[in-house]
This record gives sequence, structure tokens and C-alpha cells, in this order.
Amino acid sequence: MTEFHLLLIGYGNVAQRFVSLLGEQRAQLASRYGIGTRVIGIATRREGPRYVDSSVVSAPRRTKGGASPAKTEHYRDSTLAFIRDACVRDRAAARAGRLVVVETTTLDIARGEPAIGHVRAALAGGAHVVTANKGPAAFAYRSLARAAEKANRRFLFEGAVMDGIPIFNLVRETLPAVKILGFRGVVNSTTNFILTAMEQGQPFDQALARMQAAGIAEADASLDVDGWDAAAKTAALANVLLGASLTPHSVAREGISEATGQRAMAARAAGRRVKLVAQAVRTGRRVTARVAPEELPADDLLAGVEGQQNAILLETDLLEEIAIVQRGGSLTQTAYALLSDLITIARDIKRDTSLTWRAAARRR
Amino acid sequence: MTEFHLLLIGYGNVAQRFVSLLGEQRAQLASRYGIGTRVIGIATRREGPRYVDSSVVSAPRRTKGGASPAKTEHYRDSTLAFIRDACVRDRAAARAGRLVVVETTTLDIARGEPAIGHVRAALAGGAHVVTANKGPAAFAYRSLARAAEKANRRFLFEGAVMDGIPIFNLVRETLPAVKILGFRGVVNSTTNFILTAMEQGQPFDQALARMQAAGIAEADASLDVDGWDAAAKTAALANVLLGASLTPHSVAREGISEATGQRAMAARAAGRRVKLVAQAVRTGRRVTARVAPEELPADDLLAGVEGQQNAILLETDLLEEIAIVQRGGSLTQTAYALLSDLITIARDIKRDTSLTWRAAARRR
Repeated sequence: MTEFHLLLIGYGNVAQRFVSLLGEQRAQLASRYGIGTRVIGIATRREGPRYVDSSVVSAPRRTKGGASPAKTEHYRDSTLAFIRDACVRDRAAARAGRLVVVETTTLDIARGEPAIGHVRAALAGGAHVVTANKGPAAFAYRSLARAAEKANRRFLFEGAVMDGIPIFNLVRETLPAVKILGFRGVVNSTTNFILTAMEQGQPFDQALARMQAAGIAEADASLDVDGWDAAAKTAALANVLLGASLTPHSVAREGISEATGQRAMAARAAGRRVKLVAQAVRTGRRVTARVAPEELPADDLLAGVEGQQNAILLETDLLEEIAIVQRGGSLTQTAYALLSDLITIARDIKRDTSLTWRAAARRR
Repeated sequence: MTEFHLLLIGYGNVAQRFVSLLGEQRAQLASRYGIGTRVIGIATRREGPRYVDSSVVSAPRRTKGGASPAKTEHYRDSTLAFIRDACVRDRAAARAGRLVVVETTTLDIARGEPAIGHVRAALAGGAHVVTANKGPAAFAYRSLARAAEKANRRFLFEGAVMDGIPIFNLVRETLPAVKILGFRGVVNSTTNFILTAMEQGQPFDQALARMQAAGIAEADASLDVDGWDAAAKTAALANVLLGASLTPHSVAREGISEATGQRAMAARAAGRRVKLVAQAVRTGRRVTARVAPEELPADDLLAGVEGQQNAILLETDLLEEIAIVQRGGSLTQTAYALLSDLITIARDIKRDTSLTWRAAARRR
């Protein structure tokens, strides 16, 4: 049985759902993966960082502004100092590979901070990192992957692009010896909803306002409609799957607007669809990436991706094209992504333990 | 470096492409996975079983009826006896987990033999099994999985359902803690082609003849058009993903015929599509499965699956629906499935070795 100590950096909807999911899955995690979990600290922008002494898992803070977990100590320094301190304070867990920083802060599209700093501090302190944040992989994948390798710790981010639907795991675990040559995808739900509404004649502003009212679009609409979210996902995918060194700023980017709506209506009338397509391709040693509205024929798989659905088509050398489609998006999926990353770490430990044990047994 | 000894049971198009693929990928397999391969024996229906002394990898028999690999010994007994003998004769490799039986014989839809017997004999002799044959998983998954566990060997069959596109690996490696509740899919290309041709007014017999001429349909058309191939895939998927104990004969099965063509034409005119849908669902402790032509609305993901494409939608507890789509089918893909299974075995060994080494280093 491995008891993971979790340091939650960011404690919004995703992290809270992650904690409640840990509670719901507790029996299965214990019996099937030998995993126990204990939250040892939480850092939020509003309340700052703090250590907690009871298992938040058994008493999650369910609603915004609800009762906060028992605080045993207040920590007033910055979150970075908090992460460093936690790695020292809980050094037994860090040394044993049982300390995990769960990073779910909000993405700053200018630089990918503060998440990148959090990841770096965690790895340097001997903690694994699981994150649903696009920033680290989109801005600094290569250097963080190197830091993780050096520290012999995991830096995992399955939730960054398709919530819990495996895309990074898919390629890493199930497509050995396959080379990814490029990809195309629909990876932003807000713009997808708005485009469908505009096809049916709804004005841009009205469609956007409806998305914001439904809690699907960000308050800062630019992240979605100007293509920043899709560009960050494109950079993360290109960096990991194609070995690129992009940032969201080096992805050619065109968002959607009222004018795109006219185009979408005309396309629909002609049996075609306009989608915000994210894509990247390797040509020789160069990877080029872009996000832009594109008019697609009806038989293009991406043309049929509606509303909350996301899809990515991988172009490969040995397997031609493979598509993976997420048919619904929810908080539970993103929370699950963090859980699946945690299980990946647990599998490493389990293999290590059982094999060490077997090796020892063999020598007897 | 692990040198796998391969015993090829069946040496048709798939196995021959597998051998040439091993040659093409040799450098990558060595550097990235530490894999070397040597074919030690081949059994075909036409020529019987025989040991070979040179590496077939470097001189694959490319064409039907071409030069056969160097024979050093003829083995006239049955293939089963050959497998048993090979496991004893090459016991050093078997003990070290480096002996792999590559099973690619033709499926007998009545009982799943002779493949099941081959798998059982291989595991009993200490060999791993990789197969592109649907029979073993469709008829005897549970008992073969148990035999593999008992022998501490792998029984892998990624190529049985979607060629090299990961479906079994997808669930096993990338969806931990997710429960599969059911699935729906289009998994047979021949019927898919014929349905499209019939939608456009082509008679059934003519469409089928074209498929046979193109080498896509089996000579024995019943396997495809009566739904047997889809039923075998459905049984394999249900057995592995839903924990069922089905055989192709316990899958409710309706194939396609001239009458389905009328239905497909009428559906198409109404903006709908008829597809041969394979599905299974768990209700309580019971799994029910069926294969039948179904009329689908245009926005059903399966409605857009054309020609050689295959698609499977998984219904899950935590992640709602996930779809994986194979966008092209080829011999290389099926051969790749065998290769990916081989790499799975190599990863086990690599983990074992490196961790044993690390454990030993730690004790120093």
C-alpha cells in the first residue's frame, strides 16, 4: 500500500472534484492499485497556502465559499516557498516518491506562469507533478521533462488537452515504434458551440453571452474566441508528440468573430461545416502549427464534432490516421485525468516494489 | 539487449509483413527498446512445421509461393507437437521469457481452433503468445488469460479487432479506474463497403464480387456478410472489456443481404445511414451482445465511418463516451499490432532488468 501525500496548488472546481473523486474511488484505488491518499497542504490565491492535518479526502470542500478544510497552520509566504518548504518538511514522502504536487492554477497565457515555477520547484524538491494546466507543457515542456528525468520523478499532464481522454498516454503507452507525423483537431468547446449557434443565425455576441451564462466560456472570452486556449493545447501536443519547442505564441492563430459566423452559415447551406481547427505538422526538422477556422467537407471526421465534443486525428507513419474522440466534457473528466496520472505514478512504484521483492527472493 | 526467439505459427501475408517490418524497424527496436529478434521456426498448413537456422528477418519470404527460408530440419508432426517441442528444445529462451509464439493461422468460426490449442501449448511451454487471430479471445479468453497468468507469460492480441489501432491496450494502459459499461462499433470493412455500394444502387452480388476481386472480402463471403467476423470481434471485446464469457455463437447475429440494400437506399435518401453495428452492454451481471444492420441518424459518429474505416465507441462510467477511429486498414497495421505486442513484452523485461539492477545497486 502506497500512501501518497498530496499538495494541492490551486483548489478550484477541478481540484475539489479530484478530491471528492478520490473519496468515491477509495476502495477501488486501495484494492486494485494499492493507493491511499492524504492531502497535506492546499494553496489558493484567495486564502494563501496552508498545511492541513486531516484528510481532506474524507471532508472535501464541495461548494465555492463553503467551509474550508481544517487548518492547522497558516503559511503566509508565496506558493513557491510553500512548495519548497513542503518538500523539506515531508522529506520522507519525497524521498520515497510518495509526495505529489497537484497543480491546477489558472493559466496565464502570456508566460505560462505561475504553473511552470510550481512544477520546477516541486520536481527540484523530489515531488512528482500531476497537472491539468496547459501552461507547463505548452511553454516549457522540454526543460521540465528534463528536470523530471534528472529528479527521477514524473511530470504528467493528461488533463491539459482532452480532459481525461487519453492522448498523451495513448501515444506513450499504446503506440510504441509509431512516429507521429502531425495532427489535426477540434479542441475548444466554447468556439465549437458558438460556431454551431452562428450557423443557425445567432449573432456572435449573443452566442458568446449564452456560453458565459452557462459557465462554459471563460469570463475573459479572449482565451477561447481568439484561439489562445486552442493554441496552448496545440503547442503542448506539438511539443510532446512531435518533439517541437513551441509556445502558444509561436502557433499561427486566428480566432472566430461575427464574420466567421457569416462564413459558417454559408458553409452549412452548402453542406459543409466551419470548425476552429488546431493543427501541427513536421516537415523535416521543422514543426509548424496553427489554429484557424476552416471550412470542412461533411465527410471530414472533424466536421461532425459537436458542442462539448473534442477530437484529435493523429497522422502516423505505420498506422495511417487514428482519431480519438471525446464525446462529452465534464468536471469529472478533468478530475479523472489527475487521477489517471496518479495511478501512473503508483504503477511505477508497484513495479519497482514487486520487482525488487522478486529480485531479492530470487537471490535467496 | 533482449533477443526474442520467434516461432511463427501461420506464415501468410500478415506474418510475412510482420517479419519484413521487424527488418525495417530493426535499428529503432534495438536502440529504443533493446529488442533483437530471430525466427527459429515456422509452421504453415501447406509446408508443415520446420525449424530454420538463419534469421528469416534478414531474408523474408516476400511473395506467395516464393523461395522459402532455409530449412535445417523438417518436422512432420502436427503443429501442436512442434510448439511443445520448440519450447523444450529452446528451453533457455523459454525460461528467460524470450520465446514468443506468433500465431496468425486462419480463424475457424466453429470453435476458434486450431488457434486456441496453439496458444495453450505455447503458454504451457513457457512461451509468450502474440496473435492477430480473433479466435482465442473470442472463444476462450478467460481460460487463456488464466493460463497466461499462471505461466507468468503474456497472451496478447491487439491485432484481433482493429488491426494495430489500440483498443485493448487503450483500456488496459490508459484508462485505469474507468469501468467500461458497453460499446458500439463498426468493425467489418467488407460489409461497410458493400452497404455504401448498395446505397448507391449497386446490387448486393455485384458489390460483393467487387470486394472479393479487390481482395478485401474473404473467399468464403459468409464470414463477412453473415456477420461472423463482426460477431467474433464483438465476443473478444465483450470478454476482455466487459468481463463476459461469450463466444461468437452467443452474439445475436444478423448479416446483410440484398434486402438490407433496399433499406440502406431508403435511409440514405432520408439523410440517414445503415451500418452493420456491433455492440454489447452490461446489465447487472449479464452481458448481451449483438451484430445487426442499424439505421443511424447522420450525426451518429458511426454513420460517418466509411469503407476501410473502423470505429469503436466505449461507454464508460467516469469519462462518458470515448471513440477511437481507425481511418485506414492495411497489412502493415495488422503486422504492427504484433510488433506492438512484442514491445509490450520487451517493456516487461526491461522494467524487470533495470529495476532488479537498481535494487541491487541500492543494497551495495
